[in-house]
Amino acid sequence: MRYRGKRVLVTGGLGFIGSNLSIRLVEEGAEVTIIDSSVAGCGANLFNIAPIRGEVRIVDADLAEPEAFRNDIADCDIIFNLAGEISHIHSMQFPERDLQINTVAQLRFLMECARTAPGVRVVYASTRQIYGIPDYLPIDERHPIQPVDFNGVHKYAASMYHQMLSRTGQIDGVVLRLTNVYGPRMALDVPCQGFLSTFLRRLLMSQPLQVYGDGRQLRDPVYIDDAVEAFLLAGSARNLEHRTYNVGGPQALSLNDIAEIATLAAGAPGVEYLPFPEEIRQIDIGSYTTDSNLILDDLGWRPTVRFEPGVARALAYYRENLARYLDPNHPQPSCRMPEHSGAAWRLLYAAV
Amino acid sequence: MRYRGKRVLVTGGLGFIGSNLSIRLVEEGAEVTIIDSSVAGCGANLFNIAPIRGEVRIVDADLAEPEAFRNDIADCDIIFNLAGEISHIHSMQFPERDLQINTVAQLRFLMECARTAPGVRVVYASTRQIYGIPDYLPIDERHPIQPVDFNGVHKYAASMYHQMLSRTGQIDGVVLRLTNVYGPRMALDVPCQGFLSTFLRRLLMSQPLQVYGDGRQLRDPVYIDDAVEAFLLAGSARNLEHRTYNVGGPQALSLNDIAEIATLAAGAPGVEYLPFPEEIRQIDIGSYTTDSNLILDDLGWRPTVRFEPGVARALAYYRENLARYLDPNHPQPSCRMPEHSGAAWRLLYAAV
Repeated sequence: MRYRGKRVLVTGGLGFIGSNLSIRLVEEGAEVTIIDSSVAGCGANLFNIAPIRGEVRIVDADLAEPEAFRNDIADCDIIFNLAGEISHIHSMQFPERDLQINTVAQLRFLMECARTAPGVRVVYASTRQIYGIPDYLPIDERHPIQPVDFNGVHKYAASMYHQMLSRTGQIDGVVLRLTNVYGPRMALDVPCQGFLSTFLRRLLMSQPLQVYGDGRQLRDPVYIDDAVEAFLLAGSARNLEHRTYNVGGPQALSLNDIAEIATLAAGAPGVEYLPFPEEIRQIDIGSYTTDSNLILDDLGWRPTVRFEPGVARALAYYRENLARYLDPNHPQPSCRMPEHSGAAWRLLYAAV
Repeated sequence: MRYRGKRVLVTGGLGFIGSNLSIRLVEEGAEVTIIDSSVAGCGANLFNIAPIRGEVRIVDADLAEPEAFRNDIADCDIIFNLAGEISHIHSMQFPERDLQINTVAQLRFLMECARTAPGVRVVYASTRQIYGIPDYLPIDERHPIQPVDFNGVHKYAASMYHQMLSRTGQIDGVVLRLTNVYGPRMALDVPCQGFLSTFLRRLLMSQPLQVYGDGRQLRDPVYIDDAVEAFLLAGSARNLEHRTYNVGGPQALSLNDIAEIATLAAGAPGVEYLPFPEEIRQIDIGSYTTDSNLILDDLGWRPTVRFEPGVARALAYYRENLARYLDPNHPQPSCRMPEHSGAAWRLLYAAV
């Protein structure tokens, strides 16, 4: 029981990964404090932590004003840092909002950590998005950083803060670069959270999934429980060999396969194959697969849940709690196109 | 005459590199508009452009408020983007100030460029600082990005904006990663602008140069005229093979050699060798040298001015204009240590 009696802070603990992580931490005997200000569009959902209500402390505070929860920082043993804007599309529409949430707030929070809890372990949730269009596959941690959207730029800046403050001993940071994570407690009603959210929403609404072209681009979705285990390992490892780890899924699947498997699991009508609009085809990022050997070698982590049982478990969870995740009055959230840039928006659409 | 009749915008045009570049552009027949709000500590000096006063337009505007000079953006053919905070020490003392100047302002400025002058060539002045402690030498463009200070994080975020907006066709950006640049018009009265500024200041004040330990760490200083030529080539190249180029000097010299050569050129008293404080020795970044082959292959650029004549020219310039660069009332600006982090400050001191 690595976390028994540990005081743990989870920023963004009402969100998808943060809530699943908090639930596991409570199960492992940790004292969990969640910092979450439920920023619109960032996926916070109080229902996510229903299984542990009353067993966790929830602080409704903005990460950009860490003075408000300084005592919580001072008291904690480990920080899991998952707060952030996750929508690539939002970031293109409102880049300064994204900069504020993902970079400015992280700077203030980490400076407070360095002052108040010097040397504290901080595990940060980064994303494969920072790699942009792959130069090669599978992508390891040395792949060039070439994000295709503001979200990627700002999340990478925050990860550089973690690395830089760790190099000088002010915090003890670890950065996990996550591929597409899916499973229970993922937001389904926030527009443009990636294709897995869209797929799940359509299946739950008995709509056919839609795939452009031949759908042969690869993705390697990772099930939430596997992602949570990566966080737990990174948070408790004594001596880290590295400070940046890729976290990928167990299978390289085509969008095609993903759609077919999910459709079968849902008992939904068949997949619709639509012609690939030329302008999207030209800027498609192609395939993405992860080389997770570094975290396997250093921390012994490997993904264990294949997509078939994973998507079935996710669907079962949502069916049981549908009203908590889909608002029947707004069944199909739409993405508004940024005014000044059609090209950028289309690139994003292809990239997520 | 590549720039005859071209309308060119130079942000940070009153600073060290910006002013030298502006003078060359005017000589080449360009219509130059300088955007510079003379932010304290960023090296702006109106005297720098004395040779071209009356021949350039100067707009006193903050890069973070580009609406104020939208027409200048709309009218221009090429943008040289050199505005920024350059002090690593300042960035550790006031990280949010650095974030505002180097990232937030760049975001607003570049979004305005994308709207007002879509597809415009923008040449951005980045720095070797983003590479941090070298994994190998000489450093090429594929070296990992691991900045050791906030300045490096924020400058790298700005360079990612350039790359990202270029990938989507909104601007046509090029990023130059400069090694230590030296020569006429460098600020000497701003604390902690790097060891070459300190060396020049001490020589001009007839103080001996000071080197810690054996001074065998390598640096490859590049003379300002060579750096300016790299900007001119990057600004006028038709089809760029790459969007990021290292710009290094012609020689790998030890700090030792640099100090001895400069001392000889200045006719100053001998170099003082002081014991290396253990805590600094432990965090010394060691040697840095640049692999500039990419810009040689693509743009035909190579550095031509060796350190001996370069430092002599710099000294001659400053001796002729000493009162414009050194305030006798504040002969030795000092660096204030950030309150919370001795270790970070010392690392910086070793890194610049």
